[in-house]
Amino acid sequence: MIFETLDTPAVLVDLDVAEANIRKYQAYCDTHGLKLRPHIKTHKLPSLAKYQLAQGAVGITCQKVSEAEAMVAEGGIEDVLITYNIVGERKTKRLRALAEKVSLSVVADSDVVAEGLSQAFADASDPLSVLVECNTGADRCGVATPEDAARLARRITELPGLSFAGLMTFPAFGGFTEAADWLSRAKDLIEKDGIKVPRVSSGGSQDMWQAHLAAPVTEHRIGTYVYNDRSLVTRGNCSWQDCALTVLATVVSVPSETHAIVDAGSKVLTTDLFGLQGHGHVLGREDLSIDQLSEEHGRVVSSGPINLAVGERLRIVPNHACVVANMLEHVESIRGTDVLGPLPVAARGQVW
Amino acid sequence: MIFETLDTPAVLVDLDVAEANIRKYQAYCDTHGLKLRPHIKTHKLPSLAKYQLAQGAVGITCQKVSEAEAMVAEGGIEDVLITYNIVGERKTKRLRALAEKVSLSVVADSDVVAEGLSQAFADASDPLSVLVECNTGADRCGVATPEDAARLARRITELPGLSFAGLMTFPAFGGFTEAADWLSRAKDLIEKDGIKVPRVSSGGSQDMWQAHLAAPVTEHRIGTYVYNDRSLVTRGNCSWQDCALTVLATVVSVPSETHAIVDAGSKVLTTDLFGLQGHGHVLGREDLSIDQLSEEHGRVVSSGPINLAVGERLRIVPNHACVVANMLEHVESIRGTDVLGPLPVAARGQVW
Repeated sequence: MIFETLDTPAVLVDLDVAEANIRKYQAYCDTHGLKLRPHIKTHKLPSLAKYQLAQGAVGITCQKVSEAEAMVAEGGIEDVLITYNIVGERKTKRLRALAEKVSLSVVADSDVVAEGLSQAFADASDPLSVLVECNTGADRCGVATPEDAARLARRITELPGLSFAGLMTFPAFGGFTEAADWLSRAKDLIEKDGIKVPRVSSGGSQDMWQAHLAAPVTEHRIGTYVYNDRSLVTRGNCSWQDCALTVLATVVSVPSETHAIVDAGSKVLTTDLFGLQGHGHVLGREDLSIDQLSEEHGRVVSSGPINLAVGERLRIVPNHACVVANMLEHVESIRGTDVLGPLPVAARGQVW
Repeated sequence: MIFETLDTPAVLVDLDVAEANIRKYQAYCDTHGLKLRPHIKTHKLPSLAKYQLAQGAVGITCQKVSEAEAMVAEGGIEDVLITYNIVGERKTKRLRALAEKVSLSVVADSDVVAEGLSQAFADASDPLSVLVECNTGADRCGVATPEDAARLARRITELPGLSFAGLMTFPAFGGFTEAADWLSRAKDLIEKDGIKVPRVSSGGSQDMWQAHLAAPVTEHRIGTYVYNDRSLVTRGNCSWQDCALTVLATVVSVPSETHAIVDAGSKVLTTDLFGLQGHGHVLGREDLSIDQLSEEHGRVVSSGPINLAVGERLRIVPNHACVVANMLEHVESIRGTDVLGPLPVAARGQVW
């Protein structure tokens, strides 16, 4: 039985694979003179964040104040960008406390957000670095046009307690080039207004190997690359061997010739489809698919005889690693077949 | 601002509504002489489990050993059914420890599972109660035919340390009547073999108001009814006013006339669609839908002008309450507009 010292379902993280993924993409960024700022929402493990920094990352990206707090609490992390509009006095006060400990930057896509940040930092000894979030096609957050970006950049320079730190976007999938054009236009407008644009931050794992083509981008934010997952294998970004995170599951029932049930359901694999069919890839069994999840059951079906027995263990590469890493209190760190021990997932399950 | 003492995103549980839901369904079961055994996977709150028992539930249902352990640890819970094939010595040992504290029953759908249970209980002072799980149409776990059920029932009576406790099924949605027929045939076969069938346990929220029609069922297991959710409102089981669990979210961006972004993404609402379109219902705003989730962003779109401002708060009824209650360390208990305080969600994020 594989990993017999572990109970299931467990989220396994192969540190050998994760570290190789980190080194490989750092080398790519180094080659192209691109700054790398990994997004820790994928792993939420201070030890991996520190490994990323030790290999040459310029800082980390977080999505929530609580993630940043958990990373900073461990020590050894000095530069944090939170790529989110931080709204409300409760959270902006926590930003103040964070900014006293690390070099902190955040984003804003409206006057209201910038003014809230300004209120919290008006009497701070150092201004808070604020990037303008730009909607370059993903239609999530972000100012709508380069002209709006320039207007908000100007506003940020005028607000007490803030300093304009540059532009930030999360491009639409496949929209990397359009994003670069958009950012160039915004950068030109802002510079014509006499304001420097120190950073242009873009991100995403899907176009990670084209990141160097996206001038004027100066730094790339990327999360999933540390673990990889079925979505990135399917899109040709990596191979199954590059997947550092797997879910270890036990077959608990083989009710028919062609289907079996494992003890990994939506409360560990999640229902994220990410544009795929089925709920993960069973390593070493191309004939199997996971066609249905309930909370604690995963249904595995086969095109032919299922050839599984109760008690047998499977390793599943999930569709989307970032959400699976967030489901259990601990991931189990391994190196190959060696079990190293549980690592607590910091800041999961926090309100914010 | 609503619930201004709380930060967002928060999972709110209105105890007034939850308690009314519990009383209402208990009254239904009492009227029809049906035993009610609520499934605590929905709330994972010992206090609500005790309320369910105080209103007349015969015991609780759990899906995992760790859930049962967390409920029993609090005291006051004496009868637990785990509706899952418990596989592996590590878990069956924990069952032994649990069985010394409470009246415990579990299920099995194969000889292998029953034999594993028998090994752990062979030298126990009291036998472990085991129900045969039946596949009455949902094609998840369960023996395939009534004849298989009878065979496994016989096997359970022969295995040391076990006692046969009856039949258990989770019917297919809408397959309540077929399930009842299936169970009747199995019960007849087992009784003809001279074995008593003390319990016949069925479950599910979708057909909850027809549960009394499903003779020979003696007990009904039900989870979601305590909170209700968008899936049950959509299917006509209840109204929005009966939804006890809502996600409180803040608008963080209004990038266009027709869309806004809230701070509730897939890491709190989950991507469970449950056959629906969109990711939840915004209370009081029939014109809005949540068409896209990323991990910490929810995109709200409107058929007309969105009419939302940054900082505004929304209450969202999720598609599926059971998985949302599992996402954060605490739910915030409320009664109407009064905030009572956080309740820790027991046993979430445990391996098993």
